[in-house]
Amino acid sequence: MTKAPPPIRAFEPEFVAGLKEIFEQRITFNAVLGLKIDKLAPDGVTGHIDMKPELVGHFVYNRVHGGVISAGLDAMAGLAVLAAIGGRHMDEPPAQRLQRFVRLGTIDLRVDYLRPAIGPRFELRAQVLRLGSRVASTRMEFHGHDGELLASGAGAYIVS
Amino acid sequence: MTKAPPPIRAFEPEFVAGLKEIFEQRITFNAVLGLKIDKLAPDGVTGHIDMKPELVGHFVYNRVHGGVISAGLDAMAGLAVLAAIGGRHMDEPPAQRLQRFVRLGTIDLRVDYLRPAIGPRFELRAQVLRLGSRVASTRMEFHGHDGELLASGAGAYIVS
Amino acid sequence: MTKAPPPIRAFEPEFVAGLKEIFEQRITFNAVLGLKIDKLAPDGVTGHIDMKPELVGHFVYNRVHGGVISAGLDAMAGLAVLAAIGGRHMDEPPAQRLQRFVRLGTIDLRVDYLRPAIGPRFELRAQVLRLGSRVASTRMEFHGHDGELLASGAGAYIVS
Amino acid sequence: MTKAPPPIRAFEPEFVAGLKEIFEQRITFNAVLGLKIDKLAPDGVTGHIDMKPELVGHFVYNRVHGGVISAGLDAMAGLAVLAAIGGRHMDEPPAQRLQRFVRLGTIDLRVDYLRPAIGPRFELRAQVLRLGSRVASTRMEFHGHDGELLASGAGAYIVS
Repeated sequence: MTKAPPPIRAFEPEFVAGLKEIFEQRITFNAVLGLKIDKLAPDGVTGHIDMKPELVGHFVYNRVHGGVISAGLDAMAGLAVLAAIGGRHMDEPPAQRLQRFVRLGTIDLRVDYLRPAIGPRFELRAQVLRLGSRVASTRMEFHGHDGELLASGAGAYIVS
Repeated sequence: MTKAPPPIRAFEPEFVAGLKEIFEQRITFNAVLGLKIDKLAPDGVTGHIDMKPELVGHFVYNRVHGGVISAGLDAMAGLAVLAAIGGRHMDEPPAQRLQRFVRLGTIDLRVDYLRPAIGPRFELRAQVLRLGSRVASTRMEFHGHDGELLASGAGAYIVS
Repeated sequence: MTKAPPPIRAFEPEFVAGLKEIFEQRITFNAVLGLKIDKLAPDGVTGHIDMKPELVGHFVYNRVHGGVISAGLDAMAGLAVLAAIGGRHMDEPPAQRLQRFVRLGTIDLRVDYLRPAIGPRFELRAQVLRLGSRVASTRMEFHGHDGELLASGAGAYIVS
Repeated sequence: MTKAPPPIRAFEPEFVAGLKEIFEQRITFNAVLGLKIDKLAPDGVTGHIDMKPELVGHFVYNRVHGGVISAGLDAMAGLAVLAAIGGRHMDEPPAQRLQRFVRLGTIDLRVDYLRPAIGPRFELRAQVLRLGSRVASTRMEFHGHDGELLASGAGAYIVS
């Protein structure tokens, strides 16, 4: 059943704009992180965070706080789940699809910190490994601006 | 060997003040979270976060962002590890013990989100389950102001 | 809502016997592990595993294989979820309650290995931190026969 | 520093044979699982498990026990770490390199169960995301015989 993914269609500009506004502005803590969406598709999402003094976790090395990484990866995984759900409900009007965001919840999260996160910009990627009717499983990556993998994550999300 | 914990002595005011300053101010992202230390002892630490608009993750319910929880629990677990290490090195001058903070690193983190985090204040607790010579394992809890358990966590830290 | 747990009633001997037979015999891999139920209650379950040559993971130290620990904790957590569900459906006949076992599934599992697992017998404990209508979150412990905590776990389970 | 991986050389037949004997026979619980090594290289390892009645976790569906998956992925990840370490110490005689297996330990493990594991044979893959001087981080996959991803894992290992 889950083997044949639905054909991937691009989201309407209205849906993308609405989702960006919710994700980047109305989820206030995402704005605090400076988290921006770069790509939004049913098979995966990417975004970035620009380094700024508020995000420092280690003042000696000017390293990003581990919590910025866990928060960013959790947010991106939730977005990936929503995009995957959205891709399955292209028959719904965009506004109705956006409503699904409200019902999404993180069950649990794991982050593996591989290398110190130092640099001017970080790229975040998330994809859904399995989208069930009740639970979605995701995998996430946090990269340096040179593409190096700095942290890796996995999460489970409740959907409805 | 690990069965008999060292007798627990209170930390010197100088050490506590130094650690609070590092943790609450110089780790800038902790200040963004508004994370404050309430108890600092070798056998466990507690702290709190007061709700504020920047921390919102779900604008409909005014719920705290999951990333605030993961970031706060990671920070508190690191503090618990440092306090446990500090308790083993009471022979070192406070300033030298504080230096150990610089070398601490999160290996990985898991957070289980149990209930929606809504309320005026949240309490965070962390304790070290095992402190080895290279790795420390921790357990953390995020409580509502009425004491309800809202999230639970586990982390592994590299020490040196 | 979840604050006031239902009053805890003991399970009927018929239910306990049926569950023991399923858990210890029909789930064949549990029999391979030698996993036995010692306590079965809605607020938590305990069991044990006796050491035997098949379970060795480290032939130099005669240490239990990490997989015995993860498998045993996963099985016990599933049992704890079933017991918690059972406690909520004491109005159902035992046979119907047992049917619920069939629909239980592990979403994910984390195990922290704290100390080498060496000894003649190990005790496993599991409790449900939160039982929702769709997902249950659990915490587990693996103890040595002297009571020492050797490993700690957390899991999420799908219920229906 | 960790950016430029060492050039990958094939292991000597003596090393491979020695490692297979330790892994498949002397780690008794791996033999109980029927875990076999198919590929052994510094950049990743693969193996397989053939279905048999002892591995059943769900007697209604003849599904593999989740503990077989967690145990198998943990074992394969440890093997991947050893192979990665081995690849860095090709100057050591094979026997000395094998000794390093004895000092390897799992810090923690996470497994995400994506789809029911049913079928005649399963393939397990593991790779090291980062090999440090004290800790290695790994990623693992458990596939059905048709290549479908059934479970995904991550682990941290202590090395010395």
